[in-house]
Amino acid sequence: MSRDNSGTSDGQNAIRLIGTVESSLNDLGIAPRQPDEGAPEASLRLDRGVEAGLEGITAGDRIIVLTWLHHARRDVLRAHPRGDTTRPELGVFATRAPDRPNPIGLHDVMVIAVAGPVIRVARLEAIDGTPVLDIKPVLGSVR
Amino acid sequence: MSRDNSGTSDGQNAIRLIGTVESSLNDLGIAPRQPDEGAPEASLRLDRGVEAGLEGITAGDRIIVLTWLHHARRDVLRAHPRGDTTRPELGVFATRAPDRPNPIGLHDVMVIAVAGPVIRVARLEAIDGTPVLDIKPVLGSVR
Repeated sequence: MSRDNSGTSDGQNAIRLIGTVESSLNDLGIAPRQPDEGAPEASLRLDRGVEAGLEGITAGDRIIVLTWLHHARRDVLRAHPRGDTTRPELGVFATRAPDRPNPIGLHDVMVIAVAGPVIRVARLEAIDGTPVLDIKPVLGSVR
Repeated sequence: MSRDNSGTSDGQNAIRLIGTVESSLNDLGIAPRQPDEGAPEASLRLDRGVEAGLEGITAGDRIIVLTWLHHARRDVLRAHPRGDTTRPELGVFATRAPDRPNPIGLHDVMVIAVAGPVIRVARLEAIDGTPVLDIKPVLGSVR
């Protein structure tokens, strides 16, 4: 396998944005850091080309949504936990800080409804317009 | 934000491979599908350039490791659950099948030890040479 630590640009290793978050959250500054801190319902609108991949997801399922936190900085390796500068810095891999080499967001959410290419979910802390990379069932409910 | 559904090739949205799995598992055909199905201990060797990001991760922590399943097919949208052709196909987003538009592996593992840029972990089902994309603390133990 080829390694290219400066980033990959060939088609095989490039990420593909498969959909977008639609949410009333549109200000990164006030977005909750975790879903239990006031995150609203939101929708995941998948591109029509991948809609077939949703078959089998139904209301009540727990899913993991992987997003691409497109506003994040990728050159950050240390962060104050939860942005609290009174706490000592840690490595970003010991935190959920969005700024990190690959700013992939991980969201464990409940499905409220599925309608065509749109999944309605509870308590998603990602802001409107965040790209979606992948959806997986939560382990334990794995098929 | 620009959208490019054929894959992104600009530096901002390209994934960066931050390390590699070192494992005795080297045959995709016999790799366990889930960690509780005989997955061995393995090591995550991070690139020196991101080693500072590990500060704060210690033995006993539970972490989520995101990998890039580089042997996966990206043009697959439906799969038989667990590869069992006697079961009806589902959309890939309702399964943990590795073949999917963005073949990101998600592994919830326990840290056994950290030594420099190497994290030893229990029960990882990724094969030797699998690229690592990100490491996050498990929620509930979030800092």
